[in-house]
Amino acid sequence: MKAAIFHGPHQSLRIEDYPTPTIKPHEVLVKVAACGVCHTDLHYIDHGVPTFKKPPLILGHEASGTVTQVGNDVKNFKEGERVLLPAVLTCGTCDYCRTGRENICQTMTMFGNNIDGAYAEYVVAPAKDIFHLPPEIPLAEGCIIADAISTPYHAVKSRAEVRPGDTVVVFGCGGVGINVVQMAAVAGGVVIAVDISDRKLERAQQFGATRTINPTKVENLGKEVKKLTGGGADIAIEAIGKPQTIEAAFGTLRKGGRLVVVGYSTEDIKLSAAKIMYFEMEVRGSLGCRPVDYPRLIELCRIGKIKVKELVTQKFPLEQINDAFDLLRSHDENALRSIVIP
Amino acid sequence: MKAAIFHGPHQSLRIEDYPTPTIKPHEVLVKVAACGVCHTDLHYIDHGVPTFKKPPLILGHEASGTVTQVGNDVKNFKEGERVLLPAVLTCGTCDYCRTGRENICQTMTMFGNNIDGAYAEYVVAPAKDIFHLPPEIPLAEGCIIADAISTPYHAVKSRAEVRPGDTVVVFGCGGVGINVVQMAAVAGGVVIAVDISDRKLERAQQFGATRTINPTKVENLGKEVKKLTGGGADIAIEAIGKPQTIEAAFGTLRKGGRLVVVGYSTEDIKLSAAKIMYFEMEVRGSLGCRPVDYPRLIELCRIGKIKVKELVTQKFPLEQINDAFDLLRSHDENALRSIVIP
Amino acid sequence: MKAAIFHGPHQSLRIEDYPTPTIKPHEVLVKVAACGVCHTDLHYIDHGVPTFKKPPLILGHEASGTVTQVGNDVKNFKEGERVLLPAVLTCGTCDYCRTGRENICQTMTMFGNNIDGAYAEYVVAPAKDIFHLPPEIPLAEGCIIADAISTPYHAVKSRAEVRPGDTVVVFGCGGVGINVVQMAAVAGGVVIAVDISDRKLERAQQFGATRTINPTKVENLGKEVKKLTGGGADIAIEAIGKPQTIEAAFGTLRKGGRLVVVGYSTEDIKLSAAKIMYFEMEVRGSLGCRPVDYPRLIELCRIGKIKVKELVTQKFPLEQINDAFDLLRSHDENALRSIVIP
Amino acid sequence: MKAAIFHGPHQSLRIEDYPTPTIKPHEVLVKVAACGVCHTDLHYIDHGVPTFKKPPLILGHEASGTVTQVGNDVKNFKEGERVLLPAVLTCGTCDYCRTGRENICQTMTMFGNNIDGAYAEYVVAPAKDIFHLPPEIPLAEGCIIADAISTPYHAVKSRAEVRPGDTVVVFGCGGVGINVVQMAAVAGGVVIAVDISDRKLERAQQFGATRTINPTKVENLGKEVKKLTGGGADIAIEAIGKPQTIEAAFGTLRKGGRLVVVGYSTEDIKLSAAKIMYFEMEVRGSLGCRPVDYPRLIELCRIGKIKVKELVTQKFPLEQINDAFDLLRSHDENALRSIVIP
Repeated sequence: MKAAIFHGPHQSLRIEDYPTPTIKPHEVLVKVAACGVCHTDLHYIDHGVPTFKKPPLILGHEASGTVTQVGNDVKNFKEGERVLLPAVLTCGTCDYCRTGRENICQTMTMFGNNIDGAYAEYVVAPAKDIFHLPPEIPLAEGCIIADAISTPYHAVKSRAEVRPGDTVVVFGCGGVGINVVQMAAVAGGVVIAVDISDRKLERAQQFGATRTINPTKVENLGKEVKKLTGGGADIAIEAIGKPQTIEAAFGTLRKGGRLVVVGYSTEDIKLSAAKIMYFEMEVRGSLGCRPVDYPRLIELCRIGKIKVKELVTQKFPLEQINDAFDLLRSHDENALRSIVIP
Repeated sequence: MKAAIFHGPHQSLRIEDYPTPTIKPHEVLVKVAACGVCHTDLHYIDHGVPTFKKPPLILGHEASGTVTQVGNDVKNFKEGERVLLPAVLTCGTCDYCRTGRENICQTMTMFGNNIDGAYAEYVVAPAKDIFHLPPEIPLAEGCIIADAISTPYHAVKSRAEVRPGDTVVVFGCGGVGINVVQMAAVAGGVVIAVDISDRKLERAQQFGATRTINPTKVENLGKEVKKLTGGGADIAIEAIGKPQTIEAAFGTLRKGGRLVVVGYSTEDIKLSAAKIMYFEMEVRGSLGCRPVDYPRLIELCRIGKIKVKELVTQKFPLEQINDAFDLLRSHDENALRSIVIP
Repeated sequence: MKAAIFHGPHQSLRIEDYPTPTIKPHEVLVKVAACGVCHTDLHYIDHGVPTFKKPPLILGHEASGTVTQVGNDVKNFKEGERVLLPAVLTCGTCDYCRTGRENICQTMTMFGNNIDGAYAEYVVAPAKDIFHLPPEIPLAEGCIIADAISTPYHAVKSRAEVRPGDTVVVFGCGGVGINVVQMAAVAGGVVIAVDISDRKLERAQQFGATRTINPTKVENLGKEVKKLTGGGADIAIEAIGKPQTIEAAFGTLRKGGRLVVVGYSTEDIKLSAAKIMYFEMEVRGSLGCRPVDYPRLIELCRIGKIKVKELVTQKFPLEQINDAFDLLRSHDENALRSIVIP
Repeated sequence: MKAAIFHGPHQSLRIEDYPTPTIKPHEVLVKVAACGVCHTDLHYIDHGVPTFKKPPLILGHEASGTVTQVGNDVKNFKEGERVLLPAVLTCGTCDYCRTGRENICQTMTMFGNNIDGAYAEYVVAPAKDIFHLPPEIPLAEGCIIADAISTPYHAVKSRAEVRPGDTVVVFGCGGVGINVVQMAAVAGGVVIAVDISDRKLERAQQFGATRTINPTKVENLGKEVKKLTGGGADIAIEAIGKPQTIEAAFGTLRKGGRLVVVGYSTEDIKLSAAKIMYFEMEVRGSLGCRPVDYPRLIELCRIGKIKVKELVTQKFPLEQINDAFDLLRSHDENALRSIVIP
């Protein structure tokens, strides 16, 4: 089959012939319809973050497609069915998996990292971890549910625990942040979107933000939020991954408020110990999404509560995958999520 | 002032002259803009449920208006401001009030029951328990936030704890039920509305229901819901107040599901002990709404996430208040909430 | 091997030769040290409740022993190690298992019901579902952790959610109830034990009850509890399994209180709909215990916070197992838990 | 009356004559039996932290005594009754008070800071905020419930949410820390106490610690805890108030673990953003205790689940109060809590 192969950092992916994978009895073979292009891939390509499977490796962890072959033990899928693959597979037996926290599974397996991903014509997945995509959701665009939408779903529902009427400040309105905005609004939150791009803030309003703030245009962001909310936000969610914005997000909260960190940063954050203690602040991390949550999420997409198609702003054929990464690197404020079509 | 006076059960209210109330230092006098007409009033008028203040009594517990006089100790309100009155006042010092459950305050005081209500030109209220109504919310229609909307808010947020993607079956789509539908949808729930009136079900869809079921048209309601949801609903909310519908609601739940009882009934319900235990079912009651929740609720109305104006289907001048009760008694499926304009 | 065989209801178990089971690669063979004798067995023997595996069947679901053989894929156990078997095995893949509720697994497998149990010299178990028993816990007596102690652990911790200072009324002080008393006390609860046997109440005090009530000696149990607690208990846990006691337990609660049903009954319970709604009462079922919780529970036993040895009041050789059931049938108030030693 | 007067920082308290306070209708006058000596007082005396009421001020916020006079509106107390005063009074009307979080009341009032405290013969308190001390609790020693015991109660119950079997690492075994140890054990926690004093660790075992670690005697504290717990603690509670120990506490947690900060520090803490996000860590502050929780706490002391008397290691007459502060400054590892007897 044709695939975009990662041969190591600091070089483009190469379109090559690669052996079409074979399946085990509990697995299915999926003909890839589309695979989302994610910043995580750039960590491997541009920044040398090591992958667990050594190159050559097929990247891509946000895939949808059609089942073309099913293993002998597979009962819940048939050839020809439309499916969504989660970004991460879980072991099912560690303490985290068994206590409802499989998203932090002790030995999780990520497509395009631990195992071959979906920048290819075919990808293999265990039948227990994939999901039917209903006809109301377009097959190609639907792929982005697997990370760009599922990560915010988990963050908003299970970590931020947004409830109707909560004020939620969202830092960052890019590919993930825009969906944090969308999801917080779906949960009944009153959302204040924060970004340095007015274009992105405009779009945040289309995805449910009640108010927007460009921090380069106000004197003091924390004070601005406290003024708008009468004392500070209930919840702040950081979807950028920088110490400064994480700390700024903390600064917008009311007493007893909750900060949720979704963005990834390798640096330390500094927080006032006195404020944490004396104001009973709360800080929580959020990672990915449990596969078991996907059916509910897919249903929300199916009935139109969550916009999917509108999030895909560019499509690239597999052969032009490196252009897709270039677009990501350009921080084009008009681009949201790109998908690659093999 | 002019007021509709309750002189005891089994007789119409009488429009009479009544002394305009005087205020204490911590109170305000409110010129009533409108007051919602509620089934609770019929309990006193038609069914002889006793009121705590003996007649003559002014009924009416869902009021909005304009401040016309403020007590000497009042700092948060000024003459001319638009306000909403909660249905119930709380003591602020009992264990329930002090543990965040003031809606089940040990010694709560209800307008139109313990004290004079708002079917009158003026009503008195303590300043600590009333709320500003922003200009985006129409003053008259806004009155219904105080019960028809606040009771569902509490039920959905704090008792049912609806989270994005939860399947929620709502039994009853009348004045309260329609708002349970609306609120569960606002919280990200996937709502199945149940009512024996197709007209009401049609309206439930306009207020956010994804699916509707008329139980007179299906063979087995429980099975129908289990088929639609792949095993049963996460949450069922009963907003009618009959043992049969409470028990039917219980029957639509999946294993581990949660039943929330909002409707009031004086009868016993029968539930299978084995099912409760073996399937780890959960049953919770829900009563009213904490005044402290009102600002968040008002904000949701202000930004249009919750529809208010559309809920008011009839307006009556105070003189015709008995016609409003007749409409309520008629169970007209086109009527939602009526308000009385003094 | 020697085993006590169940050949169908209404007849004694028969001690017979039975093929020693063989193991699969992921399983271990355990030489049984002891197996607890439980009321559940009487359901099959005396009351004709059908078992999933048809007779001949080895009953017994509360076992400890020594590993004598390990499958090829087993990495976490070695021959000679002391182990505890949980009463129930879980599928690991259903929605309940994946959301931290494996105790209500969609397709759970129970020893001595779906598969052969431990009233025998040997029993087979999957390595992923068994636990090391530390030397501080006696091997034979330790078997009762698997149900008599684990069921109360789950009920108190995850369903009743007892917190330090909560008042907890426990109905029934038999084999399970005494451990609900013990566990609620370990969680910091102030426990009121209720039983009609003074001997059992005396023992309840030794296991942590602060107060005891014999309902045959007070005029009104509900009022008595309300007097002792200043308004009613926070939590009531029923560990008997009768509608009357479940309803009585409900009657001891304060406003906003929580009833947890641990006892099994095939009948309906009747509860006041008005009380549930108006007082925001809560009812929850509790079933078994998640295997994943066992290590914490075993640690509590190891450090002596939970008494184990003291709970075993009789030991029977396998040949006398029917005497053990006779003792159970006699409702001897001096007996707590019996174990059978093969 | 005689009182120990604070005239400003960097000088000893002076025993002087001071007007006996007079009471308002809702207040009571309490003859002080004893008042605990707390590090918080040293903040004012030694470190110049300003008090809200300007000197002259009576310090002391941990008091018990006997009611000697009751205001006209007071219904729940009589002359001669034994009472406990909470350290902090709450407004009862702010959002925090009304949502069950009165311990972070917007306008709280602290004895010995905002108003005169209890290093004196008499102190005044509002009747709504004080509590009966039952005869089983010694009147003088009982005073320390008001802070040294109540702060850990809140931290363990409501912020750390310790449940039976949770592993809890407690940093610091001084006056507050020793009670965090005690309380975590009461809640069913398996406690690992950490302190640099072996004497204090020995005492921690008497108050419920299962294991102790002197960090000066192990190579790597985090690794040590991870070895003991099989991967890290569920919960870590810091009761010292230093960035290094807060960060070290964070380092002992398992994935998904929770850090609770009880100690007060004016400095920043540094935490790895990647760890918070990728391991879904949680950080929470904890401040004081809600007055409404006191009755439950007092009951736990009354029935002996919580040791009180054993915590009081020194008693000083009021005249020697400065010696009590000297003892506090000496960090004597044999001293736990001192009380002053007027």
